[in-house]
Amino acid sequence: MAHYIIGVDYGTLSGRAIIVDAETGRELPKVCDFNYPHGVMKKELPSGKALPVDYALQDPQDYLLTLSNIVPEAMKENGVTPEEVIAIGIDFTACTVLPVDREGTPLCFTGKYRDDPMAYVQLWQHHGAQEEADAMTRLAEQRGEPFLARIGGKVSSESLLPRLYKIFKDDPELYRDMDEYLEAGDWLVEQLTGNRFRNSCDAACKSFWHDKDGFPPKDFFAALDPGFENVVADKLRAPILRIGEKAGEINENGARLTGLKPGTAVSAAIADGHASVAGTLKDVSEGQMVMIMGTSCAHFLVGTEDKIVPGCFSVAVDSVLPGYYGYECGQSGFGDHYAWFVDHCVPEEYSQMARAKGMNLHQYLTEKCASLFPGESGLLALDWWNGNRSVLNDSNLTGLMVGLNLTTKPEEVYRALIEATAYGTRKIIDTFEESGVPVKRIYATGGISQKNAVAMQIFADITKRPIQIAGSKNSGALGAAVLASLAAGPEKGGYARIEDATRVMANLTESEYLPNSENAAIYDELYRIYSELHDMFGRGGSIAMPELKRIQKQAIVQKAALNLSEQFEL
Amino acid sequence: MAHYIIGVDYGTLSGRAIIVDAETGRELPKVCDFNYPHGVMKKELPSGKALPVDYALQDPQDYLLTLSNIVPEAMKENGVTPEEVIAIGIDFTACTVLPVDREGTPLCFTGKYRDDPMAYVQLWQHHGAQEEADAMTRLAEQRGEPFLARIGGKVSSESLLPRLYKIFKDDPELYRDMDEYLEAGDWLVEQLTGNRFRNSCDAACKSFWHDKDGFPPKDFFAALDPGFENVVADKLRAPILRIGEKAGEINENGARLTGLKPGTAVSAAIADGHASVAGTLKDVSEGQMVMIMGTSCAHFLVGTEDKIVPGCFSVAVDSVLPGYYGYECGQSGFGDHYAWFVDHCVPEEYSQMARAKGMNLHQYLTEKCASLFPGESGLLALDWWNGNRSVLNDSNLTGLMVGLNLTTKPEEVYRALIEATAYGTRKIIDTFEESGVPVKRIYATGGISQKNAVAMQIFADITKRPIQIAGSKNSGALGAAVLASLAAGPEKGGYARIEDATRVMANLTESEYLPNSENAAIYDELYRIYSELHDMFGRGGSIAMPELKRIQKQAIVQKAALNLSEQFEL
Repeated sequence: MAHYIIGVDYGTLSGRAIIVDAETGRELPKVCDFNYPHGVMKKELPSGKALPVDYALQDPQDYLLTLSNIVPEAMKENGVTPEEVIAIGIDFTACTVLPVDREGTPLCFTGKYRDDPMAYVQLWQHHGAQEEADAMTRLAEQRGEPFLARIGGKVSSESLLPRLYKIFKDDPELYRDMDEYLEAGDWLVEQLTGNRFRNSCDAACKSFWHDKDGFPPKDFFAALDPGFENVVADKLRAPILRIGEKAGEINENGARLTGLKPGTAVSAAIADGHASVAGTLKDVSEGQMVMIMGTSCAHFLVGTEDKIVPGCFSVAVDSVLPGYYGYECGQSGFGDHYAWFVDHCVPEEYSQMARAKGMNLHQYLTEKCASLFPGESGLLALDWWNGNRSVLNDSNLTGLMVGLNLTTKPEEVYRALIEATAYGTRKIIDTFEESGVPVKRIYATGGISQKNAVAMQIFADITKRPIQIAGSKNSGALGAAVLASLAAGPEKGGYARIEDATRVMANLTESEYLPNSENAAIYDELYRIYSELHDMFGRGGSIAMPELKRIQKQAIVQKAALNLSEQFEL
Repeated sequence: MAHYIIGVDYGTLSGRAIIVDAETGRELPKVCDFNYPHGVMKKELPSGKALPVDYALQDPQDYLLTLSNIVPEAMKENGVTPEEVIAIGIDFTACTVLPVDREGTPLCFTGKYRDDPMAYVQLWQHHGAQEEADAMTRLAEQRGEPFLARIGGKVSSESLLPRLYKIFKDDPELYRDMDEYLEAGDWLVEQLTGNRFRNSCDAACKSFWHDKDGFPPKDFFAALDPGFENVVADKLRAPILRIGEKAGEINENGARLTGLKPGTAVSAAIADGHASVAGTLKDVSEGQMVMIMGTSCAHFLVGTEDKIVPGCFSVAVDSVLPGYYGYECGQSGFGDHYAWFVDHCVPEEYSQMARAKGMNLHQYLTEKCASLFPGESGLLALDWWNGNRSVLNDSNLTGLMVGLNLTTKPEEVYRALIEATAYGTRKIIDTFEESGVPVKRIYATGGISQKNAVAMQIFADITKRPIQIAGSKNSGALGAAVLASLAAGPEKGGYARIEDATRVMANLTESEYLPNSENAAIYDELYRIYSELHDMFGRGGSIAMPELKRIQKQAIVQKAALNLSEQFEL
């Protein structure tokens, strides 16, 4: 009998399931996905109740509906029987959190809280608790809390504790009534198994838990508010389960939801980006970095030691691969730089030429910029169109381009933007290495890595490291399946060690970009200039960026006031 | 009988004549122009002889042909008889120079030199003597020559002495055979009158003559080359005539060329940009600045004292208006910034919308950016797409834009480019005032000043000075006519004093832009950031611009070498 594993990936707007042959690593051809009926709720609840700005909620009912659609369908479409499935693993966007009662029922399912926004799932992109996040950052700085350095020096509003703190302050009854505040991935595992755990990945990266120090200390929470002192004991009680460990087995409820057999192994959940690492890396060892190249770019690095790296959002053992330290870094703007350029800056003549060649503008510009030599355009950009959340972690930073002249062409600017994002990645790599964490080899997944060979060669030349491209279009789901193979264990047809599981199941193409040493030498010179400007504009040498932001805010307010006074004929 | 004055403007590709009523200042409606048959010779001489790069020559025969076409035609078209013309004045591009024999015949007219490029007119944009200019700069720096500070600290290849020095070195026979090396404007005056002078404007601005110190000293020329010691006595002998003074009267040759009556007054020539001042300023007094806003921008300021101003190309008495000090500064890139943007950076959608509205892209973008508040875009640019020849005088500087983000729109960038050129003008103004030369009020002429009200308001807000717009489309020719009215003198129907002549004859519209104090306050804040970046990138705080240029040159060489080796299958 074949042994299959199901990997389920919960993204921002939909979930998808893939099935992998545990013995051969082959992904079965049919991927089944399902769009969340309520999508992302930014304006109103299902009842029509309006939401404040910066809110991004989801309805957990959508997750159950997704599961009960895609798992049976994936089995059916791929001709797999429930008996052949040895395990299921889930990855989920994070931080994506909800309050539940003792039985695991989301409080938004109850009549009492149906109309309470805070009782719903707060999606990763929910920024409603920014003030609370800032208050926590200030307090942690004052107190010199060691956890702060492990999360990049700033408490993000995209994490659990500020959101829970906001509920404590603004919605005390909900706070009292919730049994725990859970990541959605952990909640789904509880739905399938009846067992409640917090996975080591989300606990570390989104709730600031540390394998030796635990959560931030009671003192810290007490200093925020005396009533918040016991938040960990009260609302974060569930035990931590390391990724790849078995959370339990499909129970009756789980079987009803998925069509799987009771007794099928269910692994601990994991965050979606982190899961891609196990789906991509065949060679699990220190210094392997996986880049997820999409609108933004995430960098996950495998390490063997617990080091502090500036700008790194999280460092924790068991966060990307069991038994290894995982480091997460990223660029807040990436493919969206190129998209901005294509949408706003490409002249009509180029649009016409691209159409005549049957290309989209990205393809056309890429073709044109392929023949440029490194340095030939005289251009250099800082990749901060969407701020910087890498080494500098400063959202007040903005995009910069220098070297423009009267003959500068669109393809030159386009290439300069690609190069800028590669310099940004190199800055992350250099910072890792300066902090004693080696970066040996890079793997890339996500649309750009598969579609843009020119960009990938530029990345290899600028980072001076080989870059190998992932083979699966569903690295996250595949990684969840790889981890689930450990939960199944060898006696059921799975694996005992992550190294063995990835060697068979992780998916890499033959496509590899090797640095060209002549290009790399020129890029070394250009990167020196990038670094100069990076530090000048990012570390206080120039007031330009924050000042322009300040004046911009002031101008927007003045303009609005003027428009209003004109409207009311003042 | 009416008293008319003819103003002739010699531009880069054509000459034009206007006729002005001296009593009323009215410009007669017909402007007659004529394109030089040989245009600018950059590739070859009329004989087909090839020219080196950086050469830009003209054939003086074209100037005579122009004169004999446009002057009779202007009279005929406007119904003016030669008897009614009391004076003629000429303005000419400068430095535009040629070698002549004792009779004033250009040496290129002779059989001996017909095939010698150096015997032709070297147009202002001729850069064949760059090495000689650099050698003169170095020597003047070493010797601490006082003339250097009066010409912006650098000997330009767009000036007379390095060109003459190159002839001395490379074409000694031509050097020996020439009687003098003349500005084309002065040569034409000699053709009309039989009298040879150097006008005070070109002598000061293009040959580094000073009313008290004279030309650079013999020692300086001897240090360049002992044989060059007597260059002034040998080749620059003609007396200096102040602008507005009478060079003579139309002689027989002049009458044959122009159809004017012998005895008609001819004034000293003047450089074309400088002439615009007399055509624009009604109120001749200290602190009046005239901007000529075209592809690049020239700034002429009226002063009453001899001061050194950093980056000012020339300061000299009698260079823009007789009896006043004239200061010349400028921005090497101006309207060409906006043209670059429109040509290379505006998306198809905007092109389509503009067409639908029957607008060109400049009009469409201007309309869209008109509703933006100062500071609202968060953008700021340095106006150095074509280098900087203002205060910094450094051609290695390049364009920079900061504050870009993922929602930045084309009209925001367009407005930022307009603002950048206005900050550049303010930097010039501030530098004047810091050097003790007041700038009170601005007058603008040239295409942009008449076509773009949004840009002009931005200039008023950023410079915090009223800006009044010139009325004539031919300010240069009009200025030449104003100066010629002084040569005619009051007894012939002209004027005795420049102040009286301009009050009647200079042409200003009612259109005036007054600074808006609220906008000016925001722009003050933005200008602080401009100034920070100006000094950081322009005064050595950042290596980025020169380094990028260096790497660019290196890349172009490497690429060419690679292409060649591929071509020859090396």
